[in-house]
Amino acid sequence: MTDQLADVAAHRLFAIIVAGGSGSRMKSSISKQFLPLNGKPILQHTIERFLAVSPAPQIILVLPARDLLTWATLCEQHDFYPPIETVNGGPTRFQSVRNGLAAIRATDGLVAVHDGVRPFVSPEIIQHSFETAARTGSAVTCVPVKDSVRIVDTEGNSQAVDRSRYRLVQTPQTFRLDLFRQAFQTEEQPFFTDCASVMEHAGFPITLIEGAYENIKITTPEDLP
Amino acid sequence: MTDQLADVAAHRLFAIIVAGGSGSRMKSSISKQFLPLNGKPILQHTIERFLAVSPAPQIILVLPARDLLTWATLCEQHDFYPPIETVNGGPTRFQSVRNGLAAIRATDGLVAVHDGVRPFVSPEIIQHSFETAARTGSAVTCVPVKDSVRIVDTEGNSQAVDRSRYRLVQTPQTFRLDLFRQAFQTEEQPFFTDCASVMEHAGFPITLIEGAYENIKITTPEDLP
Repeated sequence: MTDQLADVAAHRLFAIIVAGGSGSRMKSSISKQFLPLNGKPILQHTIERFLAVSPAPQIILVLPARDLLTWATLCEQHDFYPPIETVNGGPTRFQSVRNGLAAIRATDGLVAVHDGVRPFVSPEIIQHSFETAARTGSAVTCVPVKDSVRIVDTEGNSQAVDRSRYRLVQTPQTFRLDLFRQAFQTEEQPFFTDCASVMEHAGFPITLIEGAYENIKITTPEDLP
Repeated sequence: MTDQLADVAAHRLFAIIVAGGSGSRMKSSISKQFLPLNGKPILQHTIERFLAVSPAPQIILVLPARDLLTWATLCEQHDFYPPIETVNGGPTRFQSVRNGLAAIRATDGLVAVHDGVRPFVSPEIIQHSFETAARTGSAVTCVPVKDSVRIVDTEGNSQAVDRSRYRLVQTPQTFRLDLFRQAFQTEEQPFFTDCASVMEHAGFPITLIEGAYENIKITTPEDLP
């Protein structure tokens, strides 16, 4: 443990928080990351979880340009002025992450990428992801599948698969900055559903770490208690 | 639609509600199906969803013997006396379902199997599952996967898979009673994670129908709002 912490201490820590969704799936005119949860915007909760890590990473918030004013207004309402940098999002998640990455000037360090709409992530998991990435180059948070799983073919036929072999991927996904930068020099591919798939495409090994079922991504109205 | 409803009307409808979990994953001494949700036990909500279907199926509730008294007490507290039959659960889910099936004397009909801890199922989905099973012999509720998915090997290495090909299986799972009875004459297998896998093992085709993300299975404390 001391070794791992020493490894982390040797690196500069960054977190790219991607809050790019349009909220269309929420049937709400307000972007989903701004919806209130226990009296505060979801995105504020998420940022506070990262600020609670010790040492706290330098945070880059990626927001669609159209959301900048709303966010500034919400921060003022909630007296929330975190020491973070905000950059514009791109048309896809891949491009949003790349914009966030471009705002990091350091060449060495560790970078965690996290969904703005995952406000329930624990600081312990974030910390663990930095420690693991310091040792192995990557740390991708995931959970076992609780439900039965079926695979479907193009004709709609389905077959049961062994669910114990599958993991549902969450964020944070944390990587060595130099490797991550190298991986993002590629062309965007349709199968880039997360940063792990970008790193894998570049040939870098992926280390999985245990996430938590409560670390849900709020994408549909029923996710909000 | 009229044809489908006619098909359903031609069958006797049954629902086996399986409430067998021990609650150990809930870190609670009370079985999870008895935990309160908006002032009523979770299991009462689930049963009420089935009673709201028109025509309502005949309900067989499968409960561990040790929970019978607790359930009877809760029903009295909540003035809830549904017209259902209660049978003892077995040591596994497969055996609990088989016990429920043994309580059905009819030879023809449709039977829905549902988890007692899925209280958010809509009567519309239940109805749709009966209609589909009347036409095709089976209706297995499932949802697309929202998260990225990785497959792991025995050494812990992982690889991204195309999540669009996978479905997370829920309940209700509804079947023609004669086929279902035939399928459950088999020996229990370790890969029987749900009724669909039992039917598939017996060689019967599986029809998938669309579930709902809010139809969650309450298995861990964070599932409760």
